[in-house]
Amino acid sequence: MDNSGIDGRVATLTERLLRGDRRAAGRLISTIEDDSASVEQIMRAVYPHTGQAYVVGLTGPPGAGKSTVVDELIRVLRESELRVGVVAVDPNSPFTGGAILGDRIRMMRHAADPGVFIRSMGARGHLGGLAVAAFNTALLLDAMGMDIILVESVGVGQSELEITGAADTTVVVIPPGMGDGVQAIKAGIMEIADVFVVNKADHPQAERTVADIRELLRMDPSPPDWLPPIVRTVATQNQGVDELWRVVQRHRQYLEQSGELRRRRKRRVEREIVGIAEVRLRAQVLNPKLATTEFETMIDQAAERKIDPYQVVERVVPRSSDAGR
Amino acid sequence: MDNSGIDGRVATLTERLLRGDRRAAGRLISTIEDDSASVEQIMRAVYPHTGQAYVVGLTGPPGAGKSTVVDELIRVLRESELRVGVVAVDPNSPFTGGAILGDRIRMMRHAADPGVFIRSMGARGHLGGLAVAAFNTALLLDAMGMDIILVESVGVGQSELEITGAADTTVVVIPPGMGDGVQAIKAGIMEIADVFVVNKADHPQAERTVADIRELLRMDPSPPDWLPPIVRTVATQNQGVDELWRVVQRHRQYLEQSGELRRRRKRRVEREIVGIAEVRLRAQVLNPKLATTEFETMIDQAAERKIDPYQVVERVVPRSSDAGR
Repeated sequence: MDNSGIDGRVATLTERLLRGDRRAAGRLISTIEDDSASVEQIMRAVYPHTGQAYVVGLTGPPGAGKSTVVDELIRVLRESELRVGVVAVDPNSPFTGGAILGDRIRMMRHAADPGVFIRSMGARGHLGGLAVAAFNTALLLDAMGMDIILVESVGVGQSELEITGAADTTVVVIPPGMGDGVQAIKAGIMEIADVFVVNKADHPQAERTVADIRELLRMDPSPPDWLPPIVRTVATQNQGVDELWRVVQRHRQYLEQSGELRRRRKRRVEREIVGIAEVRLRAQVLNPKLATTEFETMIDQAAERKIDPYQVVERVVPRSSDAGR
Repeated sequence: MDNSGIDGRVATLTERLLRGDRRAAGRLISTIEDDSASVEQIMRAVYPHTGQAYVVGLTGPPGAGKSTVVDELIRVLRESELRVGVVAVDPNSPFTGGAILGDRIRMMRHAADPGVFIRSMGARGHLGGLAVAAFNTALLLDAMGMDIILVESVGVGQSELEITGAADTTVVVIPPGMGDGVQAIKAGIMEIADVFVVNKADHPQAERTVADIRELLRMDPSPPDWLPPIVRTVATQNQGVDELWRVVQRHRQYLEQSGELRRRRKRRVEREIVGIAEVRLRAQVLNPKLATTEFETMIDQAAERKIDPYQVVERVVPRSSDAGR
């Protein structure tokens, strides 16, 4: 592999990361978050040492108790002496900083444990997008030697699905009493969920919610080989998360035996490659053209409705003859 | 303007749209949502007739009462005989379908009013992205002759800011008692907010929230020419929304007199052009290369860690010599 472009500092930090050095991990993560110029260097240095960890994504609406489930899951994994990396993402952080703070405090009981590494990130910065930053962070934790990586994301919008949908196993955590029940849980979620968790299962509405999810799964016109199990947890009382972990392991076994794990990971790599290629294409082809005074003038004309945006695009990226349909 | 590529059906629907035909509007919006091949035709036909409407974006966390504020705002605007278009976006729709349903029902009292056109959209579909779909829909309502267009988005993540941040005036609706107060409202929101609304202002925590926002505005190191006013509303009781509309009009006046409106709209057009150019670049340059067996083989190798993703990208989009820093 050609690593000639990697500078000394990154090489040193990477070496330390590969030996499990937590401070090196923290610095490298901060660097890929803040300094887009170094991302490629770092990720290239780290990439050959990745692919060992198993990645579990957890998502669900605010208030589902995801962080408590994650916190409990860390405890369960540590009892099996598995090393755990956590990437806690909050795309809505402008308003939910308080919530993130609370979660951090709860998880902090694991902070002194050398077998646990927790990193949280909000929506700010991350020029390449939050999903890319979360994905790269998971790769760093993988290279660091973590056995299991938990990627947690608040919310269920497009960006959240992008983040947790890149996992090997995706767990969707649902609180009891989701409004209109079945109506409220729609496509998008159903497509990515490998395991459902109904947390706060001691709530009077919990069994109704379990039944709603079951009904929704039954309605799926093409029943998959893996029917997502529904696990009941009361994470605040340490209930059900052991069972959740058993179910995730069963899913892993299914993925491995069916060859689906390999396919999923291939798709993940493909998505990453396409993302990198898009950024580079923009930087090399689009940006130089956008920086011209000709383009500036055309924007003025489009803003005044003398021409339309597509006429401007035609000058920047001419339509190739065969794309004209 | 060269309209030679526009087919008969689109031309007819567009003519009807320009005369204010609601059914034509509905059909054209459905077409741009579902049929990416027709988007360019439709938007090119419509574009010369846009730029007349004033666009107000409304965003804020779930539970702030945005939809009630929008509903009230429609009433206020209709009293001034202004025609109102509403684009209600919910990027989190997989889980908040119930909420959207409720809001729709409330707004439906305006549905029979020929001076009001309401369209809601969830996260599903929208190949070009939800922000683009919302933006194009607003342009269609503009061409249809609406005076004011309200673009409402639930949530405060990146995608929501992208949606409502494209407005002329952006209103951020905040519920009382936002957890850690000042700490909870962070950058991103502060940068896009032209007007703050503290809704449910009869709540005991409301004045605290107003004080928190004021403190946050005070802390801004570079005080802008326009200091975002904070409007108190109790939308469910028809209180404060008249005042909100007066404040929005004052902001419009400020934007017009300072030349900022022109700059904002120019930036909006620029963003749209860049978005269209990116999609075209991807379709013309990237996709054909990604469809080769050579690329398929390289993804396999990257998934097996024999090469890294950047080596694959180098083959798809070679780094130009001057971009090597």
